[in-house]
Amino acid sequence: MKKAVILLSGGLDSATCLAIAKSKGFELYCMSFDYGQRHNAELEAAARLAKSMGAVEHRIVNIDLAAFGGSALTDKRIAVPTGGVKDDAIPVTYVPARNTILLSYALAWAEVLGASDIFIGVNSVDYSGYPDCRPEFISSFQVMARLATRAGVEGAPMHIHTPLIFLTKAQIIERGVALGVDYGMTVSCYQADDQGRACGVCDSCRLRKSGFEAAGVPDPTHYR
Amino acid sequence: MKKAVILLSGGLDSATCLAIAKSKGFELYCMSFDYGQRHNAELEAAARLAKSMGAVEHRIVNIDLAAFGGSALTDKRIAVPTGGVKDDAIPVTYVPARNTILLSYALAWAEVLGASDIFIGVNSVDYSGYPDCRPEFISSFQVMARLATRAGVEGAPMHIHTPLIFLTKAQIIERGVALGVDYGMTVSCYQADDQGRACGVCDSCRLRKSGFEAAGVPDPTHYR
Repeated sequence: MKKAVILLSGGLDSATCLAIAKSKGFELYCMSFDYGQRHNAELEAAARLAKSMGAVEHRIVNIDLAAFGGSALTDKRIAVPTGGVKDDAIPVTYVPARNTILLSYALAWAEVLGASDIFIGVNSVDYSGYPDCRPEFISSFQVMARLATRAGVEGAPMHIHTPLIFLTKAQIIERGVALGVDYGMTVSCYQADDQGRACGVCDSCRLRKSGFEAAGVPDPTHYR
Repeated sequence: MKKAVILLSGGLDSATCLAIAKSKGFELYCMSFDYGQRHNAELEAAARLAKSMGAVEHRIVNIDLAAFGGSALTDKRIAVPTGGVKDDAIPVTYVPARNTILLSYALAWAEVLGASDIFIGVNSVDYSGYPDCRPEFISSFQVMARLATRAGVEGAPMHIHTPLIFLTKAQIIERGVALGVDYGMTVSCYQADDQGRACGVCDSCRLRKSGFEAAGVPDPTHYR
């Protein structure tokens, strides 16, 4: 079985991405990050998801993004916006260089494992305000990853899989439901409480909620 | 004054790189990493260098590369080789995806600072065994960095400076001496002791020693 490293936040997208990697027959190595999130509910969700999908290993890496500030998700002085997504600006919930850092750690682990496949649940359709969710960013990371590593010099080239990148939230949900994902186990809210209950009004909650509506799937989210 | 983030290990190359950034008139923001090195002597050297060069800030970021193992520099079960550099293999002192991870953190800090210049003292001449020291890796990282960040979308493109990349160790030393670098403050040894004294036989010591010889500069290294 080929090994794959899957970036798993505990949210709806990464849970679907994990199910897709599993359906493709990969041996699953899940990686999550504790980067000073406002809450740990999503890390607990990630652990439950990894276990339920039969992952061989689930690593939680401590990273110190909060030291840089600059995002509503890691800097407590910046409020999480609840007024809806604006079309043509990068949201304040953007974490500087986050996906670059997360993929770099995945790359390091993949290299140690001898894996040449990394899965990340980025999406450029519903939420294109983050520069590091765009397909051109992922392509450039893949080019860089092949040059950065022992594998790129000596072995199989690294492949960054983004199975959700061109799907709408509704399509992601339909895909996940078909693969048996229990979305009640996932946490997407930017300001979930200690029990993982969602606020229902942040950008992430709004997108998730309308995704279930558009897919015609009952919303299993635990709202507070 | 334009701000620059400088990756500073405390070794000979990064000290020279810092002096070059200073000579170009940048405001200096130094970043070092505690990644489970065998000793802390080089981090102490980095702190002294940052101070002596007038850096505005010096951040030490804790990262958990040791958790991945796979290198003689972070995994205590792998011995540091002392038999000289082999020509056509990647050395066991290679740390998986290290420069990718370090540059990603520099990118995050640069973005928060509003800086669009990052300096890294990689070198592809004397020690080309590391895949992530090659110019093609750096170029690909720069392409990726421009796509990864807010700046790449809205502002000045990120520039990754590698002023040492095509210099021999002797040329690096000549350049640094001309800029007033005190190499007695730097620590290059892969297995320095608590006082920062060098072993004299690891690959890094060998390259450094022969660099001073070739440059005709007295070697100020503290050997044990």
